[in-house]
Amino acid sequence: MNPGEMIKDILAKRDSIQNVFFVACGGSLVEFYPPKYFMDAESKHCGAFLYSGKEFVCAAPASLGENSLVLLCSHSGKTPEVLEAAGLAKERGAVVITYAGVAGTPVNQAGDYHIVYGDRTEEGSHYGDSPVLLSLRLMAELLAVTEDYPYLDKVMDGISKIDTVIYNAMDQVSERAKIWGKACERENMMYILGSGPAFGNVYGFAICSMMEMQWQHAAYIHSAEYFHGPFEVTDKNTAYVVLESNGPARCMDERAIRFLKRYGAKYEVVDAKELGADIIDEKVVDYFTPLMFYKVMCVYREELAKLRNHPLSTRRYMGKVAY
Amino acid sequence: MNPGEMIKDILAKRDSIQNVFFVACGGSLVEFYPPKYFMDAESKHCGAFLYSGKEFVCAAPASLGENSLVLLCSHSGKTPEVLEAAGLAKERGAVVITYAGVAGTPVNQAGDYHIVYGDRTEEGSHYGDSPVLLSLRLMAELLAVTEDYPYLDKVMDGISKIDTVIYNAMDQVSERAKIWGKACERENMMYILGSGPAFGNVYGFAICSMMEMQWQHAAYIHSAEYFHGPFEVTDKNTAYVVLESNGPARCMDERAIRFLKRYGAKYEVVDAKELGADIIDEKVVDYFTPLMFYKVMCVYREELAKLRNHPLSTRRYMGKVAY
Repeated sequence: MNPGEMIKDILAKRDSIQNVFFVACGGSLVEFYPPKYFMDAESKHCGAFLYSGKEFVCAAPASLGENSLVLLCSHSGKTPEVLEAAGLAKERGAVVITYAGVAGTPVNQAGDYHIVYGDRTEEGSHYGDSPVLLSLRLMAELLAVTEDYPYLDKVMDGISKIDTVIYNAMDQVSERAKIWGKACERENMMYILGSGPAFGNVYGFAICSMMEMQWQHAAYIHSAEYFHGPFEVTDKNTAYVVLESNGPARCMDERAIRFLKRYGAKYEVVDAKELGADIIDEKVVDYFTPLMFYKVMCVYREELAKLRNHPLSTRRYMGKVAY
Repeated sequence: MNPGEMIKDILAKRDSIQNVFFVACGGSLVEFYPPKYFMDAESKHCGAFLYSGKEFVCAAPASLGENSLVLLCSHSGKTPEVLEAAGLAKERGAVVITYAGVAGTPVNQAGDYHIVYGDRTEEGSHYGDSPVLLSLRLMAELLAVTEDYPYLDKVMDGISKIDTVIYNAMDQVSERAKIWGKACERENMMYILGSGPAFGNVYGFAICSMMEMQWQHAAYIHSAEYFHGPFEVTDKNTAYVVLESNGPARCMDERAIRFLKRYGAKYEVVDAKELGADIIDEKVVDYFTPLMFYKVMCVYREELAKLRNHPLSTRRYMGKVAY
């Protein structure tokens, strides 16, 4: 069942979908940031909410019910918090769609619909089959039916182009990433800035790529919030990475960059506009740039890992000790 | 007009309130975290959303309209992003309530209703007149009318008790805060952990108390997300502060504390249960502990500031240079 068929099937069983909950942990939670952002920006009637798995269970939303759609994602297919969240969602009668990176896991059995991601979509896109874009398409299909969302075709067109965008962007940063890696090799602390659709990437790069994979102290800061506290730590010795969006959020990132140019010295700007995301239609491009940022930042982290001789797969606790 | 009268007045003008947007920047945004958390946990039909001022304007939500209630807060009453947000909200026909710390500011003029906070409520509570509790009361009054929320009386009772809770809690931590200050005086980096209703405090302590007021590198981490990346930086030399909630979120914080006991060494646990928040009814206490945490953490930061001879009011950029 493709995302369009899935939405039709759901709407045949429910008279309406009142709200959507995106629930996952860590890196998988990051996958859900853009579709949540899409819903906030595009949906007039369907509220969207993003929860870390255990928080969803502990602070169970009162509005979770039979007219809720719950999307759950676990790369391993075994994350206990995601399975708990599925239990709560089913108990409340919600429609549950689960994503897992592999087949035959408990998460695959935990919902009404399940998706194993990582293959190739009907549109021939490899990255179109990532949780972030599968979810974006699901949401666009939903709103196309329920609210006459007019740009589903542009979303589909974006999916057909995303591989090209990503490969070009990754190529473009390969030299800069090496320079950045050398400059940051011995940094003790790194601030990651961004806003709008890219804020999920900001979070993900800090907590997964830096803290988890490099044991690197890091903080994620929203570009607009930067001016309401965090900018006071800025000086010529503090390292920043700014993900500069190319849609309406860009002005927030530009403001932070202007400040860093004046009062900082060690900052790397990763600019969506420069990286060529704009071959995707401007009405929807904002929802695609996060995946481009993710893959581009994978090039950056790889360079740092090589220089430090600290492979990205190195762990001391995750999956190694009890917790 | 008190919050109850305000809600009655609003509901006389609008047939329903479909959603609530809490919009502010930095420290004022933190004030809105608990009422947003309250709405998520208690409201069946009214979606609640939290936005940094400029993000609200750039990523204007499609669901913002005549049946929206927008709460805006600016301590100075002059924050440009909040004024812009008020403009957007009015343009869309939403009901706008503004909060400012002083009278006669542009923010006081920007909405349909305005509140100058910092006095003493009818219940005789000083802290009951803070934006966080005024907003909590507004939301409880709203849901009491629209969804038969049964615990408005317990919220009012909590407001009458919050001063006692706060003063007792502040007294209790005064010695521990001194010890913590000494231990952390030379820390380069500090991780702040917490979850549930306290996550706003986690954010605020990191970006305002530490980064802004102490030029201290810091990161805010959700206790549940800690295990999906951030815990890999944990070692005996890395400093943590954990805000331990006393409601359903507590299990997430406890798990992080168990891990820190084993693999960390420098961590401070600030426990809501130990601090005596439980004189407030358990059905609503979760919505009051954030303000207690805030005031308790003010004691902590004050000790650090004294030892470092870096007054909390010291700024190098905020209000001093153009940005």
